[in-house]
Amino acid sequence: MMKNPIGVFDSGIGGLTVLREITRLLPGENTIYLGDTARVPYGSKSKETIERYSFEVASFLMRHDIKFLVAACNTASALAVPKLTLKLGIPVLGVIEPGAKAAVSATRNKRIGVIGTEGTIRSGAYASAIKMIDPSVETFVRACPLFVPLVEEGWNEDDVTMLVAERYLNGLKAAEVDTLVLGCTHYPLLKDIISKVMGASVRLIDSAEATAVEVKRILSEKALLNSGANTSHSFFVTDSPERFLAVGRRFYGEGLERAELANIEGL
Amino acid sequence: MMKNPIGVFDSGIGGLTVLREITRLLPGENTIYLGDTARVPYGSKSKETIERYSFEVASFLMRHDIKFLVAACNTASALAVPKLTLKLGIPVLGVIEPGAKAAVSATRNKRIGVIGTEGTIRSGAYASAIKMIDPSVETFVRACPLFVPLVEEGWNEDDVTMLVAERYLNGLKAAEVDTLVLGCTHYPLLKDIISKVMGASVRLIDSAEATAVEVKRILSEKALLNSGANTSHSFFVTDSPERFLAVGRRFYGEGLERAELANIEGL
Repeated sequence: MMKNPIGVFDSGIGGLTVLREITRLLPGENTIYLGDTARVPYGSKSKETIERYSFEVASFLMRHDIKFLVAACNTASALAVPKLTLKLGIPVLGVIEPGAKAAVSATRNKRIGVIGTEGTIRSGAYASAIKMIDPSVETFVRACPLFVPLVEEGWNEDDVTMLVAERYLNGLKAAEVDTLVLGCTHYPLLKDIISKVMGASVRLIDSAEATAVEVKRILSEKALLNSGANTSHSFFVTDSPERFLAVGRRFYGEGLERAELANIEGL
Repeated sequence: MMKNPIGVFDSGIGGLTVLREITRLLPGENTIYLGDTARVPYGSKSKETIERYSFEVASFLMRHDIKFLVAACNTASALAVPKLTLKLGIPVLGVIEPGAKAAVSATRNKRIGVIGTEGTIRSGAYASAIKMIDPSVETFVRACPLFVPLVEEGWNEDDVTMLVAERYLNGLKAAEVDTLVLGCTHYPLLKDIISKVMGASVRLIDSAEATAVEVKRILSEKALLNSGANTSHSFFVTDSPERFLAVGRRFYGEGLERAELANIEGL
């Protein structure tokens, strides 16, 4: 069971940042990643649809005997993790709780900003998670739907992106948050611009790192940690692998050589 | 058979502009529209996936006894119409040929620009269609992946959109095209900005109007025109109808009151 892989899923390529942090922190673990590139993005779709997609994706990973499931997608974490936790017989972790915890630890003035997709923001998941940890913290939120397409266009450091970031982040700046949760896996690629707009004193919380720490804690608690020498990392996608491999390297770096097509619809 | 509806499909809401032109030109026709909002967008996905989605969507419409199928989505038109034409027993029309025809009629200097999604541009469908009609015309193309999210954000007349349009269209302007095909159903909503960037002398071709004219021509040729008084227009989507109705009115105008959920996956 210890040798079984950790399953990580995302709507597409963004979750590779979470996977990268997990493999850095836990180099002895086998992993299997699934990006639902045929149905990406999740951020603008309904709760019912995201629950269904997440369950189909999780079922595919369960057939590969995963010992632990990580929802690396913020939207899936916000909308589908509660149901997945009920339905699957293994531990399930989303990125919301780890990110919320890290933000609450970081804030001094108890004013936290959260940015994410429409679905994540509308769900209120970060605000509730933060409230659970510390009811005295105030949360300010903003959906930033153009950030994902800007990153996918590769305009990470660009005048256009700067202008969009100013538009989206103005209100959070005015609210004087001292901590900002990057509530979408694409956003860490815009760290420089976001930091320029918000000011250097605002702490940016990347849920990927916080999630990896939490994965390690839970695996250790459940005596499921592995310390294999020849670990395997496999990658699956639901659309053709070419674009995933090309764009994915920007998120994952070295070691993403091959991805296989997985047909998961109508399981 | 004449009374049977015209089926129109799109990856989401954009195809409503095509439907609107069809119902304007052919007020006596019944129509049924399906927007594949659970899997939108098509523009960045592979040919195999778009063929499969288009076939599933078309099969749903066939069960509603359509007499004619219109692929209102440029990406589906570019990638899937040839296969749909082979598989279905009814006439199928995409938006590429009508748009190409209109562009060739409009150009004086025989230099045509085409903008569209990654999938549409990569397919080369417009360039081939134009070449078939008039081999002496030169075609210049540019994918504009940020235009759709900008329209969906509602930033149709905005400094950001202007800046993005300048970036995307510079090369086409330098190529001195006198005609520009708006090869994605969202782009007509950016007509003002595109026209400002390209200059007032450049003719913008909206495939929606050209497609409606072609639908009328083919129905008439096949003696399938209807002139009903109490026509019905029904709308289906694959994700929840709320967002479709809210955003859809920007594309369709009055008359979009109700949409039903259609489960089409894994037919």
